[in-house]
Amino acid sequence: MKPVVQFGTMQMLVESLLDGFVTAKDVLASGNTGIGTGAGVDGELIMLDGVAYQVDVHGHVNKVADDFPIAFGDVHQADFKPLKHFDNITLDDLQKEILKEVGTENLFFAVKMTGEFKTVETRAAAKSEKPYPGLGEIAKTQVIFDKDDVKGTMVGYYTPLVFQGVGVPGFHQHFLSDNLDFGGHVLGATLKSVDVSIQILSGVTINLPTNNEDYKKADLTDLSSLNGVIADAES
Amino acid sequence: MKPVVQFGTMQMLVESLLDGFVTAKDVLASGNTGIGTGAGVDGELIMLDGVAYQVDVHGHVNKVADDFPIAFGDVHQADFKPLKHFDNITLDDLQKEILKEVGTENLFFAVKMTGEFKTVETRAAAKSEKPYPGLGEIAKTQVIFDKDDVKGTMVGYYTPLVFQGVGVPGFHQHFLSDNLDFGGHVLGATLKSVDVSIQILSGVTINLPTNNEDYKKADLTDLSSLNGVIADAES
Repeated sequence: MKPVVQFGTMQMLVESLLDGFVTAKDVLASGNTGIGTGAGVDGELIMLDGVAYQVDVHGHVNKVADDFPIAFGDVHQADFKPLKHFDNITLDDLQKEILKEVGTENLFFAVKMTGEFKTVETRAAAKSEKPYPGLGEIAKTQVIFDKDDVKGTMVGYYTPLVFQGVGVPGFHQHFLSDNLDFGGHVLGATLKSVDVSIQILSGVTINLPTNNEDYKKADLTDLSSLNGVIADAES
Repeated sequence: MKPVVQFGTMQMLVESLLDGFVTAKDVLASGNTGIGTGAGVDGELIMLDGVAYQVDVHGHVNKVADDFPIAFGDVHQADFKPLKHFDNITLDDLQKEILKEVGTENLFFAVKMTGEFKTVETRAAAKSEKPYPGLGEIAKTQVIFDKDDVKGTMVGYYTPLVFQGVGVPGFHQHFLSDNLDFGGHVLGATLKSVDVSIQILSGVTINLPTNNEDYKKADLTDLSSLNGVIADAES
């Protein structure tokens, strides 16, 4: 059993530490499946079958170059097991069903949903430049996309609550349409007919930016700054 | 650069999830150096050069069998770099000096101190049996040991604050005397003449007890229970 391999922490995003400290190639070396964001929150990334795609602020889906800089990411080597087929269910209800099937809220696991989605709502932000603004400012640049009757894949991770600040507690999922014309960080969805598979993970490996001076010098002792933002990130 | 490999979380100890879910052999497979505790907080463990020692509640140092069950541990493969020699300094002051030398409070690193210690204060608890009591009850069984003018090794880890609840934030160190007659979880020390070496780590890998039913069923959503105990654990 393998861990999810995470690059960076949620706290880094909250504290405007948005440098790309690893490349897409580095991240894909740790797994063929995952999610992430570019330097300066440059769009929303989804990694499927070893290929990294970016959904940019215009809603365009771009294949990502090997040297694309990444500020935050979660990847693992896919070995999903089919869980169940679901018809006509909201993402919120489905996540509750998944937790019931998995039987615990205390382990890391990956989730993959493929099939037909009735509606999917996503978001993607515009790349910010240094000095990076706070997540509140970045949120103002983000665009929300809606798509009805779309075939595609939703992939992401479940993280236990005690990892808040380190990761994103609860479910964190990104979407990519089969014909590569839609995707992003998932805000909500209603699923029409999807196969759900999961992969229980041994835990998590977190890689910190050991060579990034801004990170090393940052004052990261005020954890109260995490409270509100994490609730937002989950939604 | 390698991560520290952690088994279990601090939250598990706080929430009385004290089963040994890995063996000493499993833990040593991830590194030759580290610290930990047995099932039911059965003494304090220190791993040096691939050998795991237990300091039990009587203050005895025992070599640990391969199948010794472990509830919590941190290990890594030693590749320490000399940092500095220190004379006549308290552990508190030394830790501040180390952080100054390392230049950041935001990375994981291992610390090893070898030499002569003027005083060392340690603790070790008695093994608890199921149903496990809370850490407060366990603290009542623990014994505090003091030793003056002792040669030995102090080894442990620095963990960034955002990992509180997951790990033990700040420094967490165990001690073992050269002649194997004293050791435990370090509460305080004054160092007479020691060589300090450190090893910057890429981050952390956390292995959760994926097959432990008590862990899977536990309600771990009340993070407020962590607050007081973490401060205690640090002291």
